[in-house]
Amino acid sequence: MSGVCCLLEVAGTEYLAPVDADSCRELFSSQAVARLATIGPGGPHLVPIVFAIDGDTIVTAIDQKPKRTHRLQRVVNIEGDARVVALVDHYDENWDRLWWVRADGAASILRSGREYTAAIDLLVSRYQQYQAARPDGPVIAISVARWSGWQAAPSQ
Amino acid sequence: MSGVCCLLEVAGTEYLAPVDADSCRELFSSQAVARLATIGPGGPHLVPIVFAIDGDTIVTAIDQKPKRTHRLQRVVNIEGDARVVALVDHYDENWDRLWWVRADGAASILRSGREYTAAIDLLVSRYQQYQAARPDGPVIAISVARWSGWQAAPSQ
Repeated sequence: MSGVCCLLEVAGTEYLAPVDADSCRELFSSQAVARLATIGPGGPHLVPIVFAIDGDTIVTAIDQKPKRTHRLQRVVNIEGDARVVALVDHYDENWDRLWWVRADGAASILRSGREYTAAIDLLVSRYQQYQAARPDGPVIAISVARWSGWQAAPSQ
Repeated sequence: MSGVCCLLEVAGTEYLAPVDADSCRELFSSQAVARLATIGPGGPHLVPIVFAIDGDTIVTAIDQKPKRTHRLQRVVNIEGDARVVALVDHYDENWDRLWWVRADGAASILRSGREYTAAIDLLVSRYQQYQAARPDGPVIAISVARWSGWQAAPSQ
């Protein structure tokens, strides 16, 4: 667990407590949306994603509409530099309840095969919205090398 | 407005409509938390931030506790590569109501002076949580070169 952190620069909170890796996975999974950062020639790139987790792999898919977007910037970026980071956070007016979890890893693009199908199945089972329109674009599979997370520890 | 997009890969949504720059600023400001991506030697870095907007400048501060975190990774990264991106998104179970707004720009670190004080004042006026504990660490000021955003346009 990294010691480099800061959780929204919390005023009024004395301690920021690291979250263990198992809890990181659990907290990450508890949210419907994450944000995915990649690196491109023009700088960092950042998009919201829906996702599913299988162990230390996070998967997200490119939808079938519109087809031209199958060559999305995030895909182009990953093909050039596999290093990515995905983040889930929880905001609350009470800053003693803030937390975030980050997953650093390497991404690959899947376009067919057993792993591809398994990833799509996982996404469809997690999001009912996908049941009406199964994604058929590329899958981004992130092999997570490090989970890190922090949560506010209320002031004494 | 960039044509490169995809809003959570929306199933069941026929069109993704770009959002004009004025609406981007307004939508961005409507949320309490954004995510900031920077580039470091180890790859992309991503954290949640609280922020304030003044025209085409986004500011966020480093809190005073704990003091050792004044050399946060985000600050080190910006000193090495000013290119950053900040993202705000709205998730809804109804994927016809999704939207996101992204701000691409160059960041600088402020440690004192008129702009520094103005940024802290803006943050304190926006977050009552800061009124009890005014941030006294560095400010990250992002000069936004491009606002881009997309919102779902419901299926016909």
